[in-house]
Amino acid sequence: MPRIVRFYKTGGPEVLCLEEAAPETPAAGEVRLKIEAIGINNSEAQYRRGVYPMKTTSFPTRLGREASGVVEAVGAGVTGVMVGDKVSTIPAFDIERHGVYGEWAVVPAIALAKVPNKLSRVEAAAVFQQYLTVYGPFVEYTDLTAGDTVVIVAAASSVGRGAIQVARMLGCTVVATTRSPSKRDILLEGGAQHVVVSGTDDVVATVNKITDGRGARLIFDPVAGPGLADLVEAAAPGGIIFEYGQLSGEPTPYPLVTCLRKGLSIRGYTLWEITLNPDRCARAKAWIYAALEAGSLRPAIDRIFPLDRIVDAHRYIESGKQTGKIVVTAT
Amino acid sequence: MPRIVRFYKTGGPEVLCLEEAAPETPAAGEVRLKIEAIGINNSEAQYRRGVYPMKTTSFPTRLGREASGVVEAVGAGVTGVMVGDKVSTIPAFDIERHGVYGEWAVVPAIALAKVPNKLSRVEAAAVFQQYLTVYGPFVEYTDLTAGDTVVIVAAASSVGRGAIQVARMLGCTVVATTRSPSKRDILLEGGAQHVVVSGTDDVVATVNKITDGRGARLIFDPVAGPGLADLVEAAAPGGIIFEYGQLSGEPTPYPLVTCLRKGLSIRGYTLWEITLNPDRCARAKAWIYAALEAGSLRPAIDRIFPLDRIVDAHRYIESGKQTGKIVVTAT
Repeated sequence: MPRIVRFYKTGGPEVLCLEEAAPETPAAGEVRLKIEAIGINNSEAQYRRGVYPMKTTSFPTRLGREASGVVEAVGAGVTGVMVGDKVSTIPAFDIERHGVYGEWAVVPAIALAKVPNKLSRVEAAAVFQQYLTVYGPFVEYTDLTAGDTVVIVAAASSVGRGAIQVARMLGCTVVATTRSPSKRDILLEGGAQHVVVSGTDDVVATVNKITDGRGARLIFDPVAGPGLADLVEAAAPGGIIFEYGQLSGEPTPYPLVTCLRKGLSIRGYTLWEITLNPDRCARAKAWIYAALEAGSLRPAIDRIFPLDRIVDAHRYIESGKQTGKIVVTAT
Repeated sequence: MPRIVRFYKTGGPEVLCLEEAAPETPAAGEVRLKIEAIGINNSEAQYRRGVYPMKTTSFPTRLGREASGVVEAVGAGVTGVMVGDKVSTIPAFDIERHGVYGEWAVVPAIALAKVPNKLSRVEAAAVFQQYLTVYGPFVEYTDLTAGDTVVIVAAASSVGRGAIQVARMLGCTVVATTRSPSKRDILLEGGAQHVVVSGTDDVVATVNKITDGRGARLIFDPVAGPGLADLVEAAAPGGIIFEYGQLSGEPTPYPLVTCLRKGLSIRGYTLWEITLNPDRCARAKAWIYAALEAGSLRPAIDRIFPLDRIVDAHRYIESGKQTGKIVVTAT
């Protein structure tokens, strides 16, 4: 009997249970996947703890939105995908009903995409959360050009490392920030030309020096809170700051005078804007596929756990020590 | 001997002195105007008080950026404008050196524009501060379409009333806000379909009712401060809020969660983005001229003072009682 991960109450990593469960038959518009690898995301740990904006509505519940696998069964009305296809999931569905942690999952057919064969199944489970999140601000919503300077805050996350790759692919100069001095080298190896360690280095001075005082055209920030004051000082006139998370947990004062003086935009953003809009999502999938195929992008994998160590994988993501994607293998 | 307005120290309206002064000869790139009418702006009262972000650097100093008049003398290298031309000024120059309060002023030739003959000289002094300010958010930076709902905050100012006209011209539904119940009727007559009196009416409920819960596509706000929390609640997903002033004077908390959830942009803005960029300014002038010529826009004049009552004109603008442009006539 195949196994899936469920939890019966919110709490620490140990609430995750690996249990046998018979595979379900996909309904109309759905497919069942034999899961090969699962991408682990911070939002899933928040959901498990019950601190994510969307709450669990019934227990036991499944978890996980990002996986690679093989199509095992196809529901009525599904076109464009066949049994035996190798696919990855796009995080665009109800996590309770379609959670992918386990050896099988039933997901909507529209939430599938292919990745180039050159990627391993582990890498194929680490593509869409990061690159779809990055795609909106860096490709869909701005016209970054070679020579622009961008600041990527908390850059050692999988999304941050994906953002470094995308920005470099576009010819931008990347200033990456991190709280950990130990992550400096891996960010430099990952493509950042400059690394600012928060609390030690000065992001405003660094950006001003690099840009001859012009500032950064785009800033990509999952932290918010009081640190926004420094980010607007580092931004160029007419620049844009994408806020895509709330890691700070503290209130965020809006720096009105600097925003007026520089004509700055502060843009709240989540990847749902891309995944839930069919046109944007189709553009994003095509763009990401082409960039992976060309070798311009390649997911940075930090550590791989087997499925029976799912609790350890969650402990590790909550430690904040990772510098790329955490993947769990199911086969 | 013609007279000009100068002040020798910052302070209340009474520091403004009307004194005789021989007309200066325009330098290269400049022209001298015989002033016919002068538009009075809040920013000039702030500058006179010494509370404007840009401070006076030497006394005595002149004041004023917006006027209509006739070209009296032309400096070297000036093309496209001749003695005898009727022109208006565009607020795009150093107020100390080129202030237009008075019977003559020397201004850069590039800061001149023509308005249709159908406008009076009083109206011609009330065009550019308001419509250039409105042009950026409503025309240059967004693609508003018929049926969109917009919220115009503090709408009884000259800029607010100009914004109502521009939004209606674009086919938008306008919700105008004001602190004064007595200004409700004039805003309705000025084109707003809905008026929200702050402290009495609920802007979020009003917008939700009008839009079937969708929210406002664009919000135009010179106030900032704690009121931004309500504005983001009234905004549609993907909407944009232009902050173009700091009338509140209180700190402005950034409503992170709502901005994330709705994908909202909060954009700091001043009209200098338009006036100091030659391409944008040329587009703006052409757009405004065409709309005035077509009769789609017409400046709303609140009250006219003669030049020897300049102190009263400043007292009046500081009273906040106006519902349109205050103009001072110089002839």
